[in-house]
Amino acid sequence: MATLGFIDYEQATPEVRAIYDDIMATRQTDWINNFWKALAHDPATLRRTWQSVKAIMAPGALDALTKEMMYLAVSASNQCGYCIASHTAAARKAGMTDAMFAELMAVVGMANESNRLASGYQVEIDERFKTP
Amino acid sequence: MATLGFIDYEQATPEVRAIYDDIMATRQTDWINNFWKALAHDPATLRRTWQSVKAIMAPGALDALTKEMMYLAVSASNQCGYCIASHTAAARKAGMTDAMFAELMAVVGMANESNRLASGYQVEIDERFKTP
Amino acid sequence: MATLGFIDYEQATPEVRAIYDDIMATRQTDWINNFWKALAHDPATLRRTWQSVKAIMAPGALDALTKEMMYLAVSASNQCGYCIASHTAAARKAGMTDAMFAELMAVVGMANESNRLASGYQVEIDERFKTP
Amino acid sequence: MATLGFIDYEQATPEVRAIYDDIMATRQTDWINNFWKALAHDPATLRRTWQSVKAIMAPGALDALTKEMMYLAVSASNQCGYCIASHTAAARKAGMTDAMFAELMAVVGMANESNRLASGYQVEIDERFKTP
Amino acid sequence: MATLGFIDYEQATPEVRAIYDDIMATRQTDWINNFWKALAHDPATLRRTWQSVKAIMAPGALDALTKEMMYLAVSASNQCGYCIASHTAAARKAGMTDAMFAELMAVVGMANESNRLASGYQVEIDERFKTP
Amino acid sequence: MATLGFIDYEQATPEVRAIYDDIMATRQTDWINNFWKALAHDPATLRRTWQSVKAIMAPGALDALTKEMMYLAVSASNQCGYCIASHTAAARKAGMTDAMFAELMAVVGMANESNRLASGYQVEIDERFKTP
Repeated sequence: MATLGFIDYEQATPEVRAIYDDIMATRQTDWINNFWKALAHDPATLRRTWQSVKAIMAPGALDALTKEMMYLAVSASNQCGYCIASHTAAARKAGMTDAMFAELMAVVGMANESNRLASGYQVEIDERFKTP
Repeated sequence: MATLGFIDYEQATPEVRAIYDDIMATRQTDWINNFWKALAHDPATLRRTWQSVKAIMAPGALDALTKEMMYLAVSASNQCGYCIASHTAAARKAGMTDAMFAELMAVVGMANESNRLASGYQVEIDERFKTP
Repeated sequence: MATLGFIDYEQATPEVRAIYDDIMATRQTDWINNFWKALAHDPATLRRTWQSVKAIMAPGALDALTKEMMYLAVSASNQCGYCIASHTAAARKAGMTDAMFAELMAVVGMANESNRLASGYQVEIDERFKTP
Repeated sequence: MATLGFIDYEQATPEVRAIYDDIMATRQTDWINNFWKALAHDPATLRRTWQSVKAIMAPGALDALTKEMMYLAVSASNQCGYCIASHTAAARKAGMTDAMFAELMAVVGMANESNRLASGYQVEIDERFKTP
Repeated sequence: MATLGFIDYEQATPEVRAIYDDIMATRQTDWINNFWKALAHDPATLRRTWQSVKAIMAPGALDALTKEMMYLAVSASNQCGYCIASHTAAARKAGMTDAMFAELMAVVGMANESNRLASGYQVEIDERFKTP
Repeated sequence: MATLGFIDYEQATPEVRAIYDDIMATRQTDWINNFWKALAHDPATLRRTWQSVKAIMAPGALDALTKEMMYLAVSASNQCGYCIASHTAAARKAGMTDAMFAELMAVVGMANESNRLASGYQVEIDERFKTP
């Protein structure tokens, strides 16, 4: 079990329940995943993290699916097991097909390869790439 | 200068020139950036890397702009200076606006934060997130 | 089981036993955790690693608890499962409360977020931050 | 210059100025460093990031100096040039001496070494380290 | 099970079978490990990845054992659980002894430590190390 | 300049000079690179780091060149600018040719790519890869 354990809805304080309710309403789901139940031991972090996630992942200049796939791309690059599992599910729910997943992973793999080639060969930034 | 230096078009062998030509034709541009000129000392790696990038970044289940932004998201997460500069330019050329860039970076930042919270709290993967 | 397996106290050579004894005496405990039992196949690495850990983690300009929490902060940032588990235990033994753990994790998460924002936005170092 | 450039106080909108004012008041300083001036192109990210930093770095179960040093430890572990420079300055301002810095860095180095030894040797987590 | 599941030899299309056959022939083995069976859902990525691995890992200026050990060194540094397990097996098959493994891990640990010390102390690159 | 500045041979205490002398004698060179001059502000870390590097990098089951190339492979994977520059120089001095460097970098790139594919696809470790 997580370091501080999980706080289920039934055990939660009204403050935590209100956040759980908002998570479920925003995501149109009827359950809370472990990440939030682990953070609930620190209500300040729970609230701040949720509010940030809610604001950042809402559609804006980028649509929700693109944002979910970017989140998954970063999580896969960082090799965070929990995050890969949860954001694969989230991206699928937002519309990611198997073909999109496969292309996403190919980009993540390629970027990780070329990042090391660029750094390992000590390539200087081209003048044209520098911001004015 | 890069570890092995750069190979400009004029100095390049016909084998390398053919790859440079394909890069410029595919990208509809008239110059070669330093990354490729550094790899050109190893024509096998130059060819394989270019062919992989060309295949992976072509539109498919994901459009070209989404792929470029994912590449940038991974590069920013990995903190590769050269790659951030070059793929910011590439993503802009593909249509990324300042607003899209800002939202992309917010997602990258948030994913990096929550990746560590999930791992640091030792959160177990929910049964529902496990693939059948 | 670990790549080379574990070497228990009973099976250990006198050289390895002496190190195990020093670990237990220094930490005021009566058991050896898996990390050391895995390294024991390479007595030179076992000794060097233990002596470095012993010297570095001893109270100095920073107290032992602060050092243990820093060790945990880095391990959480690196997402090393074994290290998070073992150093959470070590930090708690040194006095880390749940509230301290939660604040530590919030700092780790925030630092990982802002590290990517700074790199992703290609922010130059302020003149005032440069060392003279 | 940063990807989107910097927004100085004089050029800033009232919304951004109010955040700049809060940063300076909270930190008891009379200038804004580049990180915030780069984020200011996205006022939502500027506000959210500043409010999170302000809340997380305030003294609580951990004092302000310990938090600043943890921030620096993570930034050094992540090798973020901008963040190392800015948080070295911030930690010094909060009271970090050269001796404390040196011990901090020794812990960061050691943690990064042992993280890889634990993972590379495929060490299983001890039963005693698992949370109940 | 992996995100998209595994494709066994019996279920595979002729295209995928041909790649599986080449993997087994090249590696002189009679089975396919999970990595390839997971990628097989995306035949383009399966083929490209295998062809790259086959070309890169073939003996050249560096012998096959040295390459396998480098692959393991990077995987251990990146803390990729699957990759550490599979490339430990591959390196052993190529001739890595326990003593070589232990020295390899010591180098990986030390490099990760000194990488952070160099960055954390903000050490400038010596003029003599700069390429002409 | 580095965070705490550099300590040149002329300014060094006898304790530090003795370590500098050992570095130069071991490496058969007549100068000290910036890394050591930055660490010299903390003689305990300077000594411990040097003694560890000296012991780890000495020929054993692996020869000196292979170790230097592994050090470079990890540094390139970690994208540590200082370490890439200094260990490229060290590996060349130990005999690394341009062709060996190019193959090394190809392995580093490929390992970084496949590490993310394995993690991103959530590939389980094969039974045969598990240590008994």
